[in-house]
Amino acid sequence: MAIFPRIFGHEASGIVESVGEGVTEFVKGDHVLTVFTGECKTCKHCESKKSNMCQVLGLERRGVMHSDQGTRFSVKGKPVYHYCAVSSFSEYTVVHSGCAVKVSQQAPLEKICLLSCGVAAGLGAAWNVADISKGSIVVIFGLGTVGLAVAQGAKLRGASQIIGVDINPEKYEKVAAKCFGVTDFLNPNEYNEPIQQVIKRISGGGADYSFECIGNTGMVTTALQSCCDGWGLTVTLGVPKTNPEIASHYSAFLSGKTLKGSLFGGWKPKSDLPSLVNKYMNREIQVDEFITHNLPFEDINKAFTLMREGKCLRCVIHMPN
Amino acid sequence: MAIFPRIFGHEASGIVESVGEGVTEFVKGDHVLTVFTGECKTCKHCESKKSNMCQVLGLERRGVMHSDQGTRFSVKGKPVYHYCAVSSFSEYTVVHSGCAVKVSQQAPLEKICLLSCGVAAGLGAAWNVADISKGSIVVIFGLGTVGLAVAQGAKLRGASQIIGVDINPEKYEKVAAKCFGVTDFLNPNEYNEPIQQVIKRISGGGADYSFECIGNTGMVTTALQSCCDGWGLTVTLGVPKTNPEIASHYSAFLSGKTLKGSLFGGWKPKSDLPSLVNKYMNREIQVDEFITHNLPFEDINKAFTLMREGKCLRCVIHMPN
Repeated sequence: MAIFPRIFGHEASGIVESVGEGVTEFVKGDHVLTVFTGECKTCKHCESKKSNMCQVLGLERRGVMHSDQGTRFSVKGKPVYHYCAVSSFSEYTVVHSGCAVKVSQQAPLEKICLLSCGVAAGLGAAWNVADISKGSIVVIFGLGTVGLAVAQGAKLRGASQIIGVDINPEKYEKVAAKCFGVTDFLNPNEYNEPIQQVIKRISGGGADYSFECIGNTGMVTTALQSCCDGWGLTVTLGVPKTNPEIASHYSAFLSGKTLKGSLFGGWKPKSDLPSLVNKYMNREIQVDEFITHNLPFEDINKAFTLMREGKCLRCVIHMPN
Repeated sequence: MAIFPRIFGHEASGIVESVGEGVTEFVKGDHVLTVFTGECKTCKHCESKKSNMCQVLGLERRGVMHSDQGTRFSVKGKPVYHYCAVSSFSEYTVVHSGCAVKVSQQAPLEKICLLSCGVAAGLGAAWNVADISKGSIVVIFGLGTVGLAVAQGAKLRGASQIIGVDINPEKYEKVAAKCFGVTDFLNPNEYNEPIQQVIKRISGGGADYSFECIGNTGMVTTALQSCCDGWGLTVTLGVPKTNPEIASHYSAFLSGKTLKGSLFGGWKPKSDLPSLVNKYMNREIQVDEFITHNLPFEDINKAFTLMREGKCLRCVIHMPN
């Protein structure tokens, strides 16, 4: 269904170079975050406080512009397509005005770009979707940027125990505990029993909230099993590469558990991201600590290698000026 | 795992004949509802406002008393076991004091017995679990007593559209619309397209709330697909006889849907049922309308036939005095 060739990249920030006909919201020189799910401000979902699933500018997976289903890129006369309405692996891109969010000129673009996807998704899952309450027990599957942003969100809400689960021990030693408040680290490979049993034991019957931040539907089942009966809530954030079916024995639900999904942590991009950027500027949230590497655009493939090898959280790709 | 032989029956009311040693809450002659999930009032879950999953007197499926894992029944010296802590298909039964709820002596026992399971489960799912808001669109899969009690709960909350789905058209003609507020009836057998598509069309994009009241895990998937993106909530109430796995494509959750389970509609039996009985006495809720048949105990097998043939909602079995 996705059309190729296309320009990848979606977690990004930039400076407006020019605006299209009829666009009054931006002028040349504005600083923006580019978002993979837009906000038209007029559809039923944009008008509701309960949803960020804009019906006009929602997740676009084919690779075209929302407005006319066409593309704005070409190479030697042949069309090249978009990716998630952003296509940021490019010196210049074209995005729908509803998929750009004007932010403070004072905010460093090379840091706040993380708020256009991963860090915001994690914080939003903790705050908007789960609405974590003080003193609660939280378990997070996958300590990448998204999972660690959930941890940060949980810490800021005053969670009493934040259990991080990852098969890469470096995640914990390097960053998880130090910066983001993970209190207990569990590596499933170090246990002979299912990890949900370990979690139930160390949490006194199961966590209040569990988060699947890997993109593994089997782990959603484990996350449900790691929650307590009665009010246990599992939030699924990951997008699986394979096995798209989430499955669970009905008894998990009969005992009062809830499974909730979210896209982009429930944030409405235009309405919510500028204040999230301000929170960063006021040092109320951490963003810099997720950036373990910086590379110039010409070295972008090194970044993919680092990611694949589990050696980095976020590598910011710097475009040539 | 369940032990046989056992005495079945769990949705019931009765009069206390005698009390065991140490029991001070009841005296001979008290009117009670007997419940399949008790309330100890002291465990973590009983103390929480968010749960009715008592950790001491929760659903007991083996067939023994919670207190000593033994039985109180025997025939000719051979043990006979309990069912769900109630065993009401018997002139006399023995229940844990935590599984009996004292109610008003004025309330007719042969009506309010329905509030010890089915009708309360449906009302609670609508009120406590889903917390249906005014003007919303509700779809209910399965128009038995539980599903129709959800409809009643939705109607009393001011839902604007209540879509009932059942393959038995009599359910609608006889009772669903007349008494319980079902505004649209859908028989999946009368459509050549998946019923979730029909629901999405007549609800303008999907229901705000959907309820699975059949006990069919495949129908939970359909219920999820019948909800709208962003805030659609599916509540699963049914207990499946086969296929215990609930499965759904992850995209249902990525688009902001929630799947929530409940046992007994989230009611804490001792804390909540007496006031539900009072609501019935004050004509704030309907119960009589669910009772389509009454039979003496000796005809109990006729009741099972009526149920199996889809000819009755609730048949109240009257015990000999």
